[in-house]
Amino acid sequence: MAGLRVCSVLVTGANRGIGLGLVRQFLGMPSPPAWVFAACRDPKGQRVQELQNLASKHPNLVIIPLEVTDPASIKAAAARVGEHLGGSGLNLLINNAGITKLNSLDNETLENMTRIYTTNTVGPLLLGQAFLPLLKKAAQGSPGSALSCSKAAIINMSSYGGSIASPSGWDLMQIVSYRCSKAALNMLTKCQSLGYREHGILCAALHPGWVQTDMGGCLPSSAPQPAVTVDASVRGMLNVLSSLAEKDTGTFLDWQGKVVPW
Amino acid sequence: MAGLRVCSVLVTGANRGIGLGLVRQFLGMPSPPAWVFAACRDPKGQRVQELQNLASKHPNLVIIPLEVTDPASIKAAAARVGEHLGGSGLNLLINNAGITKLNSLDNETLENMTRIYTTNTVGPLLLGQAFLPLLKKAAQGSPGSALSCSKAAIINMSSYGGSIASPSGWDLMQIVSYRCSKAALNMLTKCQSLGYREHGILCAALHPGWVQTDMGGCLPSSAPQPAVTVDASVRGMLNVLSSLAEKDTGTFLDWQGKVVPW
Ligand SMILES: NC(=O)c1ccc[n+]([C@@H]2O[C@H](COP(=O)([O-])OP(=O)(O)OC[C@H]3O[C@@H](n4cnc5c(N)ncnc54)[C@H](OP(=O)(O)O)[C@@H]3O)[C@@H](O)[C@H]2O)c1
Ligand SMILES: NC(=O)c1ccc[n+]([C@@H]2O[C@H](COP(=O)([O-])OP(=O)(O)OC[C@H]3O[C@@H](n4cnc5c(N)ncnc54)[C@H](OP(=O)(O)O)[C@@H]3O)[C@@H](O)[C@H]2O)c1
Repeated sequence: MAGLRVCSVLVTGANRGIGLGLVRQFLGMPSPPAWVFAACRDPKGQRVQELQNLASKHPNLVIIPLEVTDPASIKAAAARVGEHLGGSGLNLLINNAGITKLNSLDNETLENMTRIYTTNTVGPLLLGQAFLPLLKKAAQGSPGSALSCSKAAIINMSSYGGSIASPSGWDLMQIVSYRCSKAALNMLTKCQSLGYREHGILCAALHPGWVQTDMGGCLPSSAPQPAVTVDASVRGMLNVLSSLAEKDTGTFLDWQGKVVPW
Repeated sequence: MAGLRVCSVLVTGANRGIGLGLVRQFLGMPSPPAWVFAACRDPKGQRVQELQNLASKHPNLVIIPLEVTDPASIKAAAARVGEHLGGSGLNLLINNAGITKLNSLDNETLENMTRIYTTNTVGPLLLGQAFLPLLKKAAQGSPGSALSCSKAAIINMSSYGGSIASPSGWDLMQIVSYRCSKAALNMLTKCQSLGYREHGILCAALHPGWVQTDMGGCLPSSAPQPAVTVDASVRGMLNVLSSLAEKDTGTFLDWQGKVVPW
């Protein structure tokens, strides 16, 4: 992880699960970022207690209100982050917020398909747009031209469930809306990597593993492997982020660095 | 095309473009289907003239009102088709209706992303659900157990633009919402192939080529090849459909039968 030295990072869905784990490990780094922006939709809500506790101990942690399905909220968050950063840019945007719902092919609905797509796919698109000026600024302020997460990057939290090519050995059939949204997120990642490369921004999709979170607990019990801890998943992913280079933009990797087929 | 002998087929978006071309060629087959259901959202509208003309000449052609973004309209269409078929099933559902919009990564919006996803991805899901009983009935009524389009099948009209793995040599960047919706449609096709196999239903995604239609005319002018005619595209696709077998369910093929990478 020696290679990952970001001055500023924003994590969406940062109040619990993998998002909270990411915030914790960024704060615990030997040289932590100057700014860790923890975005969550209800900063005064019940499920933000742990984040509040962290914020009281770490002055470099800033809680940012953000509802990822609301364009106005996204713009306001970008403005707020910009104010904190003063003249400097944002190195790393981690689109982690996401939802799922168990629904088979037979009982999937228009409402559910749309809601999950809006959160898991459209949110990351709009966040990329809103934070583009800050990401560009970080890229311009970084020495060297090679892409890296320490320079400027967008990381989209995808899922093995979004891999069309992978064999569906177990009951991935129960999450059709989720799988469609994550396949579309993978396409978005590809488009972002092509569109943002000229601005010096690396873009990649990650599968965090099967992780012990609220969402992980929702997954069909027939999952192929026992779920890993948030700590192990996040440690793995930060290690992967530290190693990402030019050639990795537009790719889909798991928390151990293995390529996941589209 | 000798192998494709369907008793009944439904084509969505059948009033113009590729959908109309499919209807024409089904009607022109040496042994045409007993029922060709041409679904379109505005059966009395201006752009339905050619279909009306065909219907006046072909008693086996039935125009069915269908707005693919409206669950009630989809259910009504399935009920209407069921009435026409009496006790028999529907062999082939072709989810052809689709929309696109030129929008770059920078000016893509929530509204546009949702609208295109609803038409191109959610529509085919809901149509699969609504026509499932009729497709099952066709499969049960067919001799032999091997999957084929003559027995029972769902064909989703995808696009090369929905291929995440393909190199984007030209300006596919301008249709981000479309590309995301088609990648998601490919995932849906995979899920449908897994879920509906036990019912004897084959599911596949097709890329029709770059075709001379209203939509084809919208594509960026930097397209890699000159567009083919609707006739050539449809002839190619019907040939591919006639050859689809058990091993092809859940695949993504172009109008010439070549596998398109996910
Ligand atoms: N856990 C796994 O096994 C697994 C596997 C593959 C991929 N993933 C992906 O990893 C990411 C994190 O998953 P997780 O397991 O940590 O899930 P989680 O425990 O359910 O947490 C989800 C987080 O996203 C936030 N969120 C949801 N909708 C939001 C919205 N509209 N606006 C703002 N924030 C929103 C939640 O906030 P609230 O507290 O306000 O609801 C919460 O902070 C997701 O993208 C998920 O798809 C997880
Ligand atoms: N043309 C190409 O080069 C190309 C390439 C790759 C893939 N495709 C795919 O092939 C399919 C057909 O394309 P095309 O070129 O024939 O397009 P087109 O000429 O624009 O025709 C689109 C058809 O879809 C119908 N439609 C659109 N939205 C609908 C809705 N909400 N409900 C019901 N019908 C709706 C339209 O009806 P109205 O007349 O009422 O609007 C029309 O009949 C699409 O799925 C497209 O994505 C085309």
